[in-house]
Amino acid sequence: MGSSDATVSAFACIDAERQERIGYPEVVYCAGKTDSQSLDIIGSMRERGIPVLATKANSALASRVLAAFPDAVFDDTARTITLGVFCEPQNRQGLISVVCAGTSDIPVAMEAVRTAEFFGSATELICDVGVAGIHRLFSRLGDVCKARVIIAVAGMEAALPSVLAGLVSAPIIAVPTGTGYGASFGGLAALLGMLNACAPGISVVNIDNGFGAGYQANMINKLGGV
Amino acid sequence: MGSSDATVSAFACIDAERQERIGYPEVVYCAGKTDSQSLDIIGSMRERGIPVLATKANSALASRVLAAFPDAVFDDTARTITLGVFCEPQNRQGLISVVCAGTSDIPVAMEAVRTAEFFGSATELICDVGVAGIHRLFSRLGDVCKARVIIAVAGMEAALPSVLAGLVSAPIIAVPTGTGYGASFGGLAALLGMLNACAPGISVVNIDNGFGAGYQANMINKLGGV
Amino acid sequence: MGSSDATVSAFACIDAERQERIGYPEVVYCAGKTDSQSLDIIGSMRERGIPVLATKANSALASRVLAAFPDAVFDDTARTITLGVFCEPQNRQGLISVVCAGTSDIPVAMEAVRTAEFFGSATELICDVGVAGIHRLFSRLGDVCKARVIIAVAGMEAALPSVLAGLVSAPIIAVPTGTGYGASFGGLAALLGMLNACAPGISVVNIDNGFGAGYQANMINKLGGV
Amino acid sequence: MGSSDATVSAFACIDAERQERIGYPEVVYCAGKTDSQSLDIIGSMRERGIPVLATKANSALASRVLAAFPDAVFDDTARTITLGVFCEPQNRQGLISVVCAGTSDIPVAMEAVRTAEFFGSATELICDVGVAGIHRLFSRLGDVCKARVIIAVAGMEAALPSVLAGLVSAPIIAVPTGTGYGASFGGLAALLGMLNACAPGISVVNIDNGFGAGYQANMINKLGGV
Amino acid sequence: MGSSDATVSAFACIDAERQERIGYPEVVYCAGKTDSQSLDIIGSMRERGIPVLATKANSALASRVLAAFPDAVFDDTARTITLGVFCEPQNRQGLISVVCAGTSDIPVAMEAVRTAEFFGSATELICDVGVAGIHRLFSRLGDVCKARVIIAVAGMEAALPSVLAGLVSAPIIAVPTGTGYGASFGGLAALLGMLNACAPGISVVNIDNGFGAGYQANMINKLGGV
Amino acid sequence: MGSSDATVSAFACIDAERQERIGYPEVVYCAGKTDSQSLDIIGSMRERGIPVLATKANSALASRVLAAFPDAVFDDTARTITLGVFCEPQNRQGLISVVCAGTSDIPVAMEAVRTAEFFGSATELICDVGVAGIHRLFSRLGDVCKARVIIAVAGMEAALPSVLAGLVSAPIIAVPTGTGYGASFGGLAALLGMLNACAPGISVVNIDNGFGAGYQANMINKLGGV
Amino acid sequence: MGSSDATVSAFACIDAERQERIGYPEVVYCAGKTDSQSLDIIGSMRERGIPVLATKANSALASRVLAAFPDAVFDDTARTITLGVFCEPQNRQGLISVVCAGTSDIPVAMEAVRTAEFFGSATELICDVGVAGIHRLFSRLGDVCKARVIIAVAGMEAALPSVLAGLVSAPIIAVPTGTGYGASFGGLAALLGMLNACAPGISVVNIDNGFGAGYQANMINKLGGV
Amino acid sequence: MGSSDATVSAFACIDAERQERIGYPEVVYCAGKTDSQSLDIIGSMRERGIPVLATKANSALASRVLAAFPDAVFDDTARTITLGVFCEPQNRQGLISVVCAGTSDIPVAMEAVRTAEFFGSATELICDVGVAGIHRLFSRLGDVCKARVIIAVAGMEAALPSVLAGLVSAPIIAVPTGTGYGASFGGLAALLGMLNACAPGISVVNIDNGFGAGYQANMINKLGGV
Repeated sequence: MGSSDATVSAFACIDAERQERIGYPEVVYCAGKTDSQSLDIIGSMRERGIPVLATKANSALASRVLAAFPDAVFDDTARTITLGVFCEPQNRQGLISVVCAGTSDIPVAMEAVRTAEFFGSATELICDVGVAGIHRLFSRLGDVCKARVIIAVAGMEAALPSVLAGLVSAPIIAVPTGTGYGASFGGLAALLGMLNACAPGISVVNIDNGFGAGYQANMINKLGGV
Repeated sequence: MGSSDATVSAFACIDAERQERIGYPEVVYCAGKTDSQSLDIIGSMRERGIPVLATKANSALASRVLAAFPDAVFDDTARTITLGVFCEPQNRQGLISVVCAGTSDIPVAMEAVRTAEFFGSATELICDVGVAGIHRLFSRLGDVCKARVIIAVAGMEAALPSVLAGLVSAPIIAVPTGTGYGASFGGLAALLGMLNACAPGISVVNIDNGFGAGYQANMINKLGGV
Repeated sequence: MGSSDATVSAFACIDAERQERIGYPEVVYCAGKTDSQSLDIIGSMRERGIPVLATKANSALASRVLAAFPDAVFDDTARTITLGVFCEPQNRQGLISVVCAGTSDIPVAMEAVRTAEFFGSATELICDVGVAGIHRLFSRLGDVCKARVIIAVAGMEAALPSVLAGLVSAPIIAVPTGTGYGASFGGLAALLGMLNACAPGISVVNIDNGFGAGYQANMINKLGGV
Repeated sequence: MGSSDATVSAFACIDAERQERIGYPEVVYCAGKTDSQSLDIIGSMRERGIPVLATKANSALASRVLAAFPDAVFDDTARTITLGVFCEPQNRQGLISVVCAGTSDIPVAMEAVRTAEFFGSATELICDVGVAGIHRLFSRLGDVCKARVIIAVAGMEAALPSVLAGLVSAPIIAVPTGTGYGASFGGLAALLGMLNACAPGISVVNIDNGFGAGYQANMINKLGGV
Repeated sequence: MGSSDATVSAFACIDAERQERIGYPEVVYCAGKTDSQSLDIIGSMRERGIPVLATKANSALASRVLAAFPDAVFDDTARTITLGVFCEPQNRQGLISVVCAGTSDIPVAMEAVRTAEFFGSATELICDVGVAGIHRLFSRLGDVCKARVIIAVAGMEAALPSVLAGLVSAPIIAVPTGTGYGASFGGLAALLGMLNACAPGISVVNIDNGFGAGYQANMINKLGGV
Repeated sequence: MGSSDATVSAFACIDAERQERIGYPEVVYCAGKTDSQSLDIIGSMRERGIPVLATKANSALASRVLAAFPDAVFDDTARTITLGVFCEPQNRQGLISVVCAGTSDIPVAMEAVRTAEFFGSATELICDVGVAGIHRLFSRLGDVCKARVIIAVAGMEAALPSVLAGLVSAPIIAVPTGTGYGASFGGLAALLGMLNACAPGISVVNIDNGFGAGYQANMINKLGGV
Repeated sequence: MGSSDATVSAFACIDAERQERIGYPEVVYCAGKTDSQSLDIIGSMRERGIPVLATKANSALASRVLAAFPDAVFDDTARTITLGVFCEPQNRQGLISVVCAGTSDIPVAMEAVRTAEFFGSATELICDVGVAGIHRLFSRLGDVCKARVIIAVAGMEAALPSVLAGLVSAPIIAVPTGTGYGASFGGLAALLGMLNACAPGISVVNIDNGFGAGYQANMINKLGGV
Repeated sequence: MGSSDATVSAFACIDAERQERIGYPEVVYCAGKTDSQSLDIIGSMRERGIPVLATKANSALASRVLAAFPDAVFDDTARTITLGVFCEPQNRQGLISVVCAGTSDIPVAMEAVRTAEFFGSATELICDVGVAGIHRLFSRLGDVCKARVIIAVAGMEAALPSVLAGLVSAPIIAVPTGTGYGASFGGLAALLGMLNACAPGISVVNIDNGFGAGYQANMINKLGGV
């Protein structure tokens, strides 16, 4: 991999000082890059000793990364690859509750979980508590309320964060997903629903952007200290 | 008003046999018509003995109608005018619960109430029980459950019918409203939210179409008999 | 299958009390789930004795379900799997007329038929009576008028429910489909057409949501008693 | 008005040879122009002996035109001004049927009528025959069928041309209107409905473009000779 | 094929009287139907002696039709199948000019050509005369001007009909195509461009609807007699 | 005002236990309510001793509130009314930096400031530091970096939060505004820009929702303690 | 006006070094600002000796500016105010041709003219040469071809730049306008048309952004030297 | 290839005089054409001695072109084929800086590079300098500032041109790309962001239209002479 850095400089400019500047290293977004480009960037970061989180990774890329760096870890639900450690598991702080409306929303929720953990937050995943059977949410409310920050992941009409925001005192980061069909228009209905939530305390990230939610939730969670 | 019928025939064709054909008379939709046209149509229906329900009426029209027909009734919240009686109040059947998320949604909800009552259904209006404070909905759930049909009126993210549909066994007609701003896009967010509801048992009418909801709810309510 | 329930609890939370609470068991929406997840959920419901209706099922899933539960039934037009019986065929009540504009709309119409029948309604399917040859609709109008509730399934400009609503006295649930091309925008034109129907008595479900129409039509049909 | 031509040349370039080139003079589209600009253009055409049809004219402009040219004619429903004669009424040819779904669609229909008549076609206006009471359309079908070309004007779901096209053998020009509210989105629903009509024989012009329909209908009507 | 008619009645209702009613037989739209359904419908029409035009046909369907009916004709550019003759080539009347902006628009243009010819019009196809090199259009203008009706097929910004309408006196039917990328949004830009054409004399059909344009152009062309 | 509570119960259901349940009292959203309704709700809250923050208030309402409650405070830029004190100014905690791209964005930014202060956060407003002259942002970066949370308010292309997120380590809540014209589509361009920010650490609220940003920023700021 | 600078600093941060940095002073965009804010900013720039161009100014603002600075110049068609001189008229360089499709597009075209002249380019305005009468464009082509840069301003379907780009060798900046109605959707159709132009050599600015076109055209024109 | 010209004339009309008329030969847009059509057009241009640039070419087409014309050159990142020379590399003039926000945007940027070079401009490609790490952009600013024209290529929120325009004095042509997911809506967010840029000096081409940007940038660059 000795020459990867030179190769990388032709198509990418790694922000190596990012960690000093704002406390967290750059993350590799694999969609839209060729697998070779992603692999070269990951290799280049490894050479510089930067811990790597790569998102939206497919399994072909994961195989190539694992072949080159056997200590890499691929989560095929979350579609994340991690290589190196930014924060040891035992040092994770606080608590982020990742609440997920339906089974189909789990991949996005897991991207949030993997991101938040990578950067040093403890997390808890609570699945399939969408508002169609609201008692399921109430039965888990005690768990949800322990968190400093809540990530609410939902598709279709995405009513989950609205209901949650009337019940809890933690800030909620809402992640719309593409779950649904027809007039869900690839997650647009969920996005609009979350932006128009009638209860305050909610902000929203891009459709399917579990990474963005996990990243910001970690920043917020860290404000609460150890 | 003797000549109104001739005048009317130039711009409108009253469906005088509608009541025999499908059981209910035609309704006058005032928006998009000049006040004079609406007045002439109402006058022409009165001459034929057809009981009148007029919707989306403004107060200027209402004044003219009341001057011509002092027994007309104008509800300035619902923006409806009624003239004559299709079903006596004491003969109203069953029960339709009109559940309304916020104070701003009341005009649309009242249009549904006035329509359903005109055609012969008993109704109950339950206000300001949006999901941001879900205990308010639970405290009224007993009342809601008495109904044969539920009309759920909501703007913004319009999560109310989704939550209701997991709690009740009556069919729900959902009415999106233009309540909200920015990315509510004039009720589009609410409309999409209701169409994508994760709980079954819901169908949807046009934005702000309280009339359409009240009309169909009455048809359904009547299936249950006296 | 003994361990499926434990497996299921990791990604799904079956709403086992739904039948007691609102009279109907939960339905499995297969799109967006992995086939293994759908299979585990179906298995878990079978273990608890809950009759299963699964929608948007593909044939690969159907094969796995049939292998595990030979008494399951797959309708490859409707894309439904049923396992167990909620209502015996001989006990089906009333009548729901499922009226379908074109040949391409039949899969969505059949999803409505299978859903309504599963929950206990008698149904009649009337095909290819779109408004382009309106005499075809008139020749079937006698049949349509026998129903307590009508489901109207149409793509393209979706004029069928508007025309029907001026001719019949039963409530109509309109289902837009993705039939068409170009400016049909995947069913958006049909959806907007149905929401703006000039005749009252119509409410609308999501594009291609035959299930939702069949489910609500059954609720309405049941109001009419045996 | 002697100097209007010089003034006009600063902001407009009248296509004076258009009549020789393609048989019809230029038409003045008043929306978006100041009233003074429209007046100067009309004056300049009068000076050159070009018969004038001006569309989308408001009453303030009409008053100024009538003051300057007392032989001008303003139709305040159609919002057209005519000045001079392109074709004498007794010389109008063939027949164009302008069929109109609802009372609110009449202004657009009248713009089509005035345009077609100006250019030399006989017309018949048939009002309020929307599909919600389809017998109204059937009772007028004999009249509609006499025409060489049909203009169908409708808002809301705009199902009228689809139904007509299955019943008649003349070409139909469909004009969507902004009639409706909510999800009609200012005529978008009607436009999409007409573009996706399931019956062939229909083409469509812009929302509220009665002029364009009347203009093309006249061209087609003329193909049939005297 | 003896039993095809019975089979067909289960999913389709052939409008056999259409030819008597409005002069032209029904056309088979193959998209959205299974190949077996299309084949059965074609077979059923052949049995009744109805000449067949089938559109949006793929080559797999064409092979099956040709195997069953060796006298069928498949045009793989236009994606049409014809079986039987509605109008003998030597009897074709008048002239329709099909003008096409770019090479990529030819399949849609050919669908218009095949449709217009099937129903009895003479046609001329004029290719690759888009406005980017407007002299190409001028050099063919003499040919274009011989037609009674013009069909203008264009994608991208679709300026062709606007320019044509200022140069010719025949009515123009404009067909937007999906040619282009990015902000062409699948033909939406072309559709909007054509609807907003600054020159009158144009009406528009659905994106890629060469059939609809050819069908209506034939109706118009026939008005001019032999 | 003695009877306002009874009046209020007819159209509103004040969530009086909200403060106990989640730590903050309900806020009055005035848009969409009549001024009388807003005044009655404010009066009713005052009677119960609940401190009031009212948003999207117009000056007519403000005059009526000030007449009834002279200790109310109206900020006509922010369009907020406050009545009573939830947190004394000297007790405000931490720091929220409200960064504003242009002069036109100040009203939305001030709504965020007033909200955050009402609920107990110290704030600093930094104006007119949009990316068109990026040195203006750099010259204020020291101030921005003192904050625990940043609210970034911007219209047009809304690039401010993307640039900020690469420079600071605090979480950013982005508020799109309707500033701009043409293809800004009322703030849609800004909203999409913020949702697609290439730098992580950002979440987004509704267009013009300064209140929502201030409310959530306060929740986050409080995590950092005194 | 001595204190305006202090006032200004509260809501605006004038980019006083912009002229040194990139050669041109900042421009005041008046829409979205209060008239007082615009006046204060203009006053503050005057105090520093910065020549002022203010765009999207209304006449009320113009009156206040003219009262304070009698040497200011207001163009009420272009809606621009200039105060002070950046480039003397006799020093204007090169030539920019501003070509305008219709009379309604003139205000936007004049904004481009005033902007380009302010910054030092010679301009020529060529009006009403839209493609509906293409000979008008050809008759002015000689003039257009003298320019180093062309600004093409058009609404409706906006075909003008496509046609021009096939005829000239200068770069074209296309400005869509809101001219039109119905499916022009406030200039969206024109914007999409220009973005999808089939001829190369065109780039596009925001709807109605005459300023942006004039500004960039001046930059390009200057590359050609004196 | 001797007969290709005749073949070509059936589906294409090569604009052979374009080079004389406006200085540059026609370019072959391969998307939407069959590979055979593209090959025939390229062959026909070669026969006439016209240098060829073909864009949006896939590798299958490239193989066929290279087999027929071994001196052709295919760039599989840019997806361009060149055959023959319009301008020798040593004669390239001026400088165009192609600035690219992220690695995924390189294919579009390279299409711009290849186009500008083909027509005779010197270029420099500067990669991965998006605003998320703005120091990367500053470190390359010296290079960027040497150019006469800048092409800025970016996806997601596309803030790059806004930031650049405040820092440089050269005109910027902005190219939105489809990089991103969810609410990027295939490049729509980037397109809107660039059209609403708060800094002047920017114009925009279609999503992914590197060719259009390179073409116009070359025209502008040439104004600066050798």
